[in-house]
Amino acid sequence: MDFASMPIIAVGAGVLGLIFAFYFATSVLKASPGNARMQEISQAIQEGAMAYLNRQYRTLIPFVIVIFFLLFFLKSWETGISFLFGAVLSASAGYVGMGITTRANARTTEAARTSLNKALGVSFRAGAVMGLSVAGLGIIGVSVLYLWFQDAEIINSFAFGASAIALFARVGGGIYTKAADVGADLVGKVEAGIPEDDPRNPAVIADNVGDNVGDTAGMGADLFESYAASTIAAMLVGVTVFKQVNAGLPGLMLPLMIGVAGLISSIIASFFVRTGENANPQTALNMGLWGTNILTAIASYGIVNMMLPPTLKISDTLTLTPNRVFIAIIAGLLVNVLIGLLTEYYTSNQKKPAQGIAKASETGAATNIIAGLATGLKSTALPVIVICVAIFVSFQVAGIFGIAIAAMAMLSTAGMVVAIDSFGPVADNAGGIAEMAELEPEVRKTTDKLDSVGNTTAAVAKGFAIGSAALTALALFNAFSELAHVQKIDILVPTTIIGLFIGAAVPFLFSAFAMEAVGKAAFEMIGEVRRQFREIPGLMEGKAKPDYRACVDISTKAAIRQMIVPGLLAVGTPLLVGFGLGKDAMGGMLAGGTVAGLLMAIFMANAGGAWDNAKKYIEAGNLGGKGTPTHAAAVIGDTVGDPFKDTAGPSLNALIKVMGTISLIIAPFLR
Amino acid sequence: MDFASMPIIAVGAGVLGLIFAFYFATSVLKASPGNARMQEISQAIQEGAMAYLNRQYRTLIPFVIVIFFLLFFLKSWETGISFLFGAVLSASAGYVGMGITTRANARTTEAARTSLNKALGVSFRAGAVMGLSVAGLGIIGVSVLYLWFQDAEIINSFAFGASAIALFARVGGGIYTKAADVGADLVGKVEAGIPEDDPRNPAVIADNVGDNVGDTAGMGADLFESYAASTIAAMLVGVTVFKQVNAGLPGLMLPLMIGVAGLISSIIASFFVRTGENANPQTALNMGLWGTNILTAIASYGIVNMMLPPTLKISDTLTLTPNRVFIAIIAGLLVNVLIGLLTEYYTSNQKKPAQGIAKASETGAATNIIAGLATGLKSTALPVIVICVAIFVSFQVAGIFGIAIAAMAMLSTAGMVVAIDSFGPVADNAGGIAEMAELEPEVRKTTDKLDSVGNTTAAVAKGFAIGSAALTALALFNAFSELAHVQKIDILVPTTIIGLFIGAAVPFLFSAFAMEAVGKAAFEMIGEVRRQFREIPGLMEGKAKPDYRACVDISTKAAIRQMIVPGLLAVGTPLLVGFGLGKDAMGGMLAGGTVAGLLMAIFMANAGGAWDNAKKYIEAGNLGGKGTPTHAAAVIGDTVGDPFKDTAGPSLNALIKVMGTISLIIAPFLR
Repeated sequence: MDFASMPIIAVGAGVLGLIFAFYFATSVLKASPGNARMQEISQAIQEGAMAYLNRQYRTLIPFVIVIFFLLFFLKSWETGISFLFGAVLSASAGYVGMGITTRANARTTEAARTSLNKALGVSFRAGAVMGLSVAGLGIIGVSVLYLWFQDAEIINSFAFGASAIALFARVGGGIYTKAADVGADLVGKVEAGIPEDDPRNPAVIADNVGDNVGDTAGMGADLFESYAASTIAAMLVGVTVFKQVNAGLPGLMLPLMIGVAGLISSIIASFFVRTGENANPQTALNMGLWGTNILTAIASYGIVNMMLPPTLKISDTLTLTPNRVFIAIIAGLLVNVLIGLLTEYYTSNQKKPAQGIAKASETGAATNIIAGLATGLKSTALPVIVICVAIFVSFQVAGIFGIAIAAMAMLSTAGMVVAIDSFGPVADNAGGIAEMAELEPEVRKTTDKLDSVGNTTAAVAKGFAIGSAALTALALFNAFSELAHVQKIDILVPTTIIGLFIGAAVPFLFSAFAMEAVGKAAFEMIGEVRRQFREIPGLMEGKAKPDYRACVDISTKAAIRQMIVPGLLAVGTPLLVGFGLGKDAMGGMLAGGTVAGLLMAIFMANAGGAWDNAKKYIEAGNLGGKGTPTHAAAVIGDTVGDPFKDTAGPSLNALIKVMGTISLIIAPFLR
Repeated sequence: MDFASMPIIAVGAGVLGLIFAFYFATSVLKASPGNARMQEISQAIQEGAMAYLNRQYRTLIPFVIVIFFLLFFLKSWETGISFLFGAVLSASAGYVGMGITTRANARTTEAARTSLNKALGVSFRAGAVMGLSVAGLGIIGVSVLYLWFQDAEIINSFAFGASAIALFARVGGGIYTKAADVGADLVGKVEAGIPEDDPRNPAVIADNVGDNVGDTAGMGADLFESYAASTIAAMLVGVTVFKQVNAGLPGLMLPLMIGVAGLISSIIASFFVRTGENANPQTALNMGLWGTNILTAIASYGIVNMMLPPTLKISDTLTLTPNRVFIAIIAGLLVNVLIGLLTEYYTSNQKKPAQGIAKASETGAATNIIAGLATGLKSTALPVIVICVAIFVSFQVAGIFGIAIAAMAMLSTAGMVVAIDSFGPVADNAGGIAEMAELEPEVRKTTDKLDSVGNTTAAVAKGFAIGSAALTALALFNAFSELAHVQKIDILVPTTIIGLFIGAAVPFLFSAFAMEAVGKAAFEMIGEVRRQFREIPGLMEGKAKPDYRACVDISTKAAIRQMIVPGLLAVGTPLLVGFGLGKDAMGGMLAGGTVAGLLMAIFMANAGGAWDNAKKYIEAGNLGGKGTPTHAAAVIGDTVGDPFKDTAGPSLNALIKVMGTISLIIAPFLR
């Protein structure tokens, strides 16, 4: 095997991904942006989103520069450069994706006037631009750094750069979107009594901007980071495990080639996404997702048999074979599918859990809240078992390398997962634009079809992001032990237990901060929306235009200000524990943070999703429908669920990974 | 030192505790039980409580017998006997305490007609009967078994017996009390519009019974178990650490003697509890609590210097001295005090967190819930740090033995803590009886003073129960490693990580089951109360009496039925993990369960307490007071908090300990 050329193949695949991203972007931009009113709204959303991203990144520049210099002087110039590269590429993926999704919204609305399939095409392709950019830039970044430095330890700080950006993007975007949402709903819908997405609502543009900065940019940065971190962790583990063969090259290169397989499968499967005019667009997206998983599996089978030696004895009890590694890959891909199905079960309004919450709303808000919390808590068990089985199986067949490669396999499909996730906010925005531009009701019906599918795919992507974050964290954990030269992290050592306690407490405290941040930001937003309704004459009558920009500004400033404290908690704790209590505590902290972070993330995401869909179930006319006390109780649950599922929950993925990548950075100091 | 006679001294101290319990019981029973109406109500509560306890224990008999025979045949007849002994003594502590507290309620009401100090005396002494029974029976049980079998491993199954009873007492009692409470409030207060504790409410007796079976019997069984388990764990660790001296006798006997110190200190300090007629009774109870801690500290200083060798080199880096062990004891006692203060801070209506939740109620139920959840999540950080510092300090000064003895020291004050905790439901019941017997309003004012103090002491006791459960679990954890002959529990081993994940998921799933159980039981209760209001003519007008017994029956049956699933989860998981995945996974499960269980328990207890007091803060006339939308929002938060703080939260203590004691039982099989 010509291992030396593989990073070049990987770069080639990454470039191919970017070429298709460009192709999809062109095809989206060719579509008609609709009438003047639609273009005006779309532009306002686009400007708001870009203004937020600019400001967020500008705020992070000093932070990035300080860490860059710290790495540069305390470790090496190469680690500094890698870090910077990771931060810049993660930010770029956000920019590119947001640039296109915010341009695709009005175009989707316009396409929806004539055809469901066309509207799906525009919105999915916009999502695919984001997805392929994430995967393409991720694999290019890792490969280029490998070609340049030939040192997996240096490349790791690429993942750290990406995770730092991802953390703030998740937290900031999460706060932004919910502050705007709560402000728009509480004053507009509840107090003023105007419908959702009504153009008279001053916070309506901020709300639509929020969908993009939270779901698109945040999720993109998050999965870019998981992608990079799991590739690097698998490379670090692989080079050690295969050290007897070609200086470890098969183990080092296999993760890259699995990444290539996943990326190309995502490109191919994106052409499967098309729907009949009366069909359920869910089927189309499922085709894309299943297609990617199946193609990746088939390609991986060829790759492991081509690249790996027929047998390799790595310990007295374990002899690696290509088929054993293949089983680990299948285990990783199955985690994808199973966690997605479980998430759907616990959150869909077609299924018992959400309907049970709806039923509990009949006796009021308190029972709705208790039912939602119980559902969320209960929903943690099966995903944890799925992850445990995957860990067990992949370890049995291929040792530690099996776990790392399972994580990598799972993430290799990120191109498609991000695509179907980013599709959601586009469809959501498209509906909003149809409403605000006062188009015929049929258009809204078509976009609603897409939007409801978007809610399911968002849930699937959330499950994917959480599950992959946990597996990535485990891979990082093993990489940490290599780099810190620790042979064991023994829980019988009290400092390890202390680390475990502290690590597990971080997700609790972090979630509290994130939820409080939403509260504070929403409070400012409510004040502003109320002020506009009060002070702008003729606003309620539709004679005057609200000051959308003021609301966008408030969300932006509040999100930026409020993301600092949780961000510092995430970055500061590993440093304090590592340098203050040593490597045992550090290992304990990583384990505690990963386990508690995973559980809290699943709990919050699923409780939030179930509350949301319980409300939708009632709004669809069940249990009395809209306007009943039952509905009012369900609305309270949905509002509680908002910061759960869109702020705290998703930020926890970024939290556990940033703890992991920092631990790798400081590991050599703890030897 | 005459170590051989020490268990006899310990038995003597235990008997002394029981004598004082008997003395206090006599003095309570001598007080006047009030008029005929008061006696009738008190009797109804007493009968309901006893009926529940009888039924609960009867349900557990088959379970206890099966385990007895399993232990008898699979391990040894001695372990079987120890288990049975633990189960019977734990149940007895519950019986004795409930017998007196349910007789003290009307007597407290009667005393409150003339004097606050007298009312405090009756109610506190009733609590002290429970407290001294728990501590006295605990130390007698452990000592007698030691004298009989001279084998710490056998005595451990005494702790297992106690923890099995404690688990079901906590879960069942927690479900009972909240089902009755929700039923009484939702139909009586909200639907029928009658006041709290109104005799026309069919669920009013069940509600008062619930206070006793939840707070008194549940807490008593729980702390009896912590007391026994931490003594035994410290003895197991001590005998190993001191093996060079007198065959380990100093290490084996020190925990017993610390227990003696704490018990006698509790007896002495219980005479400090008296108040002036216009003083705050809180000061009196604080005197009791502080007195116990200070006396225990002083006595321990003498004990360690008398019993331990001046120096003992136990490793290359650690030489034990009496003063070093004393520092560990102080660390344990300080955890008591600090966790109590933190719990009070996060839940008191005089402090910012609860007032912040009250303020958040102004914008509705959703913001109230979000604020309460955030407060609960945030409140986990400082208690965890306190526990970590205590672990760190006690390990630094005295190694593993330091941690075990810190836990023991903390629990040695259980006599007083249980006393001030059990005092709460007596005062609460006394207020209810004043209301139901339609006494003059001044009486209710006096009992309300006691009741509000009871809420604070209940919070302090909850913090104590949680913190001590965590330290006990750690001590059990080390004892497990001794018995399973494991040198390390390495988180780099995948089965350990799997155990960690599963262990951490158990508290989440368990909490969900507990909360759902309350929902189901409350649902049945609501149906029955509504039925009685509908079908009994003249009930609302006070012309006919409701059928209290039917409501008591429903709570009883529902609690018994609903406690089975969470109970089996707690008992079954360690068995499955231990025998299915081995000792690494078992170790990981214990660590994960302890860490996640502690965090969830603090989160739920403090969120619930803060919601409760936020409501009380508004009811005291702040932010508009009763009857406003703000108050309505706060009531919703309080209702959500009920199963948090009184069912799921406290049951988690029992959960993590039962997982620990089971692990000790099966440890030898996993070698």
